[in-house]
Amino acid sequence: MRVIILGADGYLGWPTVMDFAAKGHEVWAVDNYLRRTIAQQTQSEALIPLPNLQDRAAIFKAEHGKDVDVRVFDLCDYHRLAELVKEVKPDCIVHYAEQPSAPYSMSGFDEARLTLRNNLDVTFNTLWAVREHAPDCHIVKLGTMGEYGVPNIDIEEGWIDIEHKGRKDKFLFPRAAGSLYHTTKVLDTDLIWFYVRTWGLRVTDLMQGPVYGLSTDESDADERLFPNFHYDDIFGTVVNRFMVQAVAGVPLTVFGKGGQTRGYLNLRDTLQCVGLAMENPVEKGELRILNQLTETFSVNDLADRVKRVGDQMGLNVEVKSIDNPRKEREEHYYNPTHSGLMEMGLKPNYLTDEVTASILEVVNRHKDKIDPSKIMPRVKWS
Amino acid sequence: MRVIILGADGYLGWPTVMDFAAKGHEVWAVDNYLRRTIAQQTQSEALIPLPNLQDRAAIFKAEHGKDVDVRVFDLCDYHRLAELVKEVKPDCIVHYAEQPSAPYSMSGFDEARLTLRNNLDVTFNTLWAVREHAPDCHIVKLGTMGEYGVPNIDIEEGWIDIEHKGRKDKFLFPRAAGSLYHTTKVLDTDLIWFYVRTWGLRVTDLMQGPVYGLSTDESDADERLFPNFHYDDIFGTVVNRFMVQAVAGVPLTVFGKGGQTRGYLNLRDTLQCVGLAMENPVEKGELRILNQLTETFSVNDLADRVKRVGDQMGLNVEVKSIDNPRKEREEHYYNPTHSGLMEMGLKPNYLTDEVTASILEVVNRHKDKIDPSKIMPRVKWS
Repeated sequence: MRVIILGADGYLGWPTVMDFAAKGHEVWAVDNYLRRTIAQQTQSEALIPLPNLQDRAAIFKAEHGKDVDVRVFDLCDYHRLAELVKEVKPDCIVHYAEQPSAPYSMSGFDEARLTLRNNLDVTFNTLWAVREHAPDCHIVKLGTMGEYGVPNIDIEEGWIDIEHKGRKDKFLFPRAAGSLYHTTKVLDTDLIWFYVRTWGLRVTDLMQGPVYGLSTDESDADERLFPNFHYDDIFGTVVNRFMVQAVAGVPLTVFGKGGQTRGYLNLRDTLQCVGLAMENPVEKGELRILNQLTETFSVNDLADRVKRVGDQMGLNVEVKSIDNPRKEREEHYYNPTHSGLMEMGLKPNYLTDEVTASILEVVNRHKDKIDPSKIMPRVKWS
Repeated sequence: MRVIILGADGYLGWPTVMDFAAKGHEVWAVDNYLRRTIAQQTQSEALIPLPNLQDRAAIFKAEHGKDVDVRVFDLCDYHRLAELVKEVKPDCIVHYAEQPSAPYSMSGFDEARLTLRNNLDVTFNTLWAVREHAPDCHIVKLGTMGEYGVPNIDIEEGWIDIEHKGRKDKFLFPRAAGSLYHTTKVLDTDLIWFYVRTWGLRVTDLMQGPVYGLSTDESDADERLFPNFHYDDIFGTVVNRFMVQAVAGVPLTVFGKGGQTRGYLNLRDTLQCVGLAMENPVEKGELRILNQLTETFSVNDLADRVKRVGDQMGLNVEVKSIDNPRKEREEHYYNPTHSGLMEMGLKPNYLTDEVTASILEVVNRHKDKIDPSKIMPRVKWS
């Protein structure tokens, strides 16, 4: 297939570029390094410095023999994107290209506005470019499980049948996100669903939980092909951050009571899920929503697991509760359905002790690069 | 009270400015004439040419003896808005300042992007300016009944209790709007609800149906104080457009089957509703949603009514179905709850034959200004 990957420099974008190219797809990789720019501005650089996209594409070609067509531009520029879609006539566009940090989106007016505008504009531009130049193209959009928040009812896969006063209809599952970043993904979903039903576009919206890990078949060949691995308070998600804290001898920082429960998945499973979505496109006029996670943990569960495995490796891991910088429920019901991708063939890589140990080992090789001053939360929600 | 009215030049904005000032409130009126600019660009000028805001404020002062502080700037400029909020420290901000045309929002990429950016930016800027400079200020935001679409269940006032698999929670009532313009108001609601619950702001979001009429206590004194009255395909809402078609001898254009049912209200009732919302502010952290309509009609009902009253006045009104330029259900269930504002004291002005006749009479006085070429729909949804 001919695939354009938007946000190709990201934690998930780059591994997807390599995975799809290795499988024989023709891949165009687009990014403007917004995440790298923000990381520099906020002193939140990734653990392992990485070459730029063109250089990584060259290393990838040398290791794996496959070409990737890299394009560096801002996807908020509609005309650049439209030209590319017109040129490529893709079968699929994978859209990862959003400002992905919840704390950044909550850190001030300029940061919030950048997040709102960038994320909405890229989604809007993608819908228009497809409608104008490749109306049969399947868009695979990365949403987030965070769109749903933590409702007191079971979370279905995107939709819910509601019976009310003796009558019935089907609706988007209600959303109530916990940060402005997550809220921009709610807005994306509303916008996508409007244009899908109005224009007959085809879209899969993947509601993804936090991802962990850095090993993929392609990246394991050369560490310069690693995904960007963040452990800082801006871009670091909780599992990856705990791994770095364990290695650095910094107590694992649990926000508040630590009962916050989320659905997680291994980076390798993101690749499987996005691949399954691409290989099984939906009909025109359909918005398919899939919950992309393999298992749920509370923050306390995760801390206990990293501590246990870390201690077995002699790391002497401590766990410490700190004041919660976010506004969120610290104890709540959480039961998300996630059978859709399993039925499509997902073979989960769970967060076993072996997987935990393997991530800790990689981080330990880069222990000298850890800057503990980047770990503690700097942004408060209110 | 000290009140800032955003979108003060609009069909509803200007009557609200006068109504509030006449009642003794201190009023700041903000607009950048975006609607007038678009009307010129699309040859969709209002029936009666109106003076600019400063000139109307002077006429209003001469007629009614009250001052209005007019400020002309673009509310997408956050710093201008923030300065004004800091200066005024308003008790209430009424937010009408959005690109309000559904057909315009569906007419092309540039028009869609302007609608998305303008509407989201003004809402976002308003929330931030209040948080930074007047955190106790009550925001009264104009949403639209169109946010809900036409679900097959009763429409509640903004929220719904859902019981699902034996568990319960309360959610925003699901939304599925029929144009990009209406969808931007869905995004507004999501954004507002996020910041209300995160920052403890106080907001009333009024889900308003299509408004008709041009008579208010203040505008009746001098036609230069009329609201802008549109009958064109871009800004004209259905009741006002039918009135003009009846007077002009152009058959009333029913889109498709004409079973499209909506909740309507008189311009005078908009003033009552917005006033009631302002005088009864909500607690901090509360998003109150009220459905702002007084009665429901199908398009066929409205056409029949205008024809009957017009014929009694000797107008010889015809009704004609045309291909529906929109993508919408032409026959559907529709039962919106709208008791909240009634309980707060709203005394409805229904669309009686007398009210219909009085609007037809005003339009008839301006019959020479009607341009029939502006009536037929130019924008198709797909």
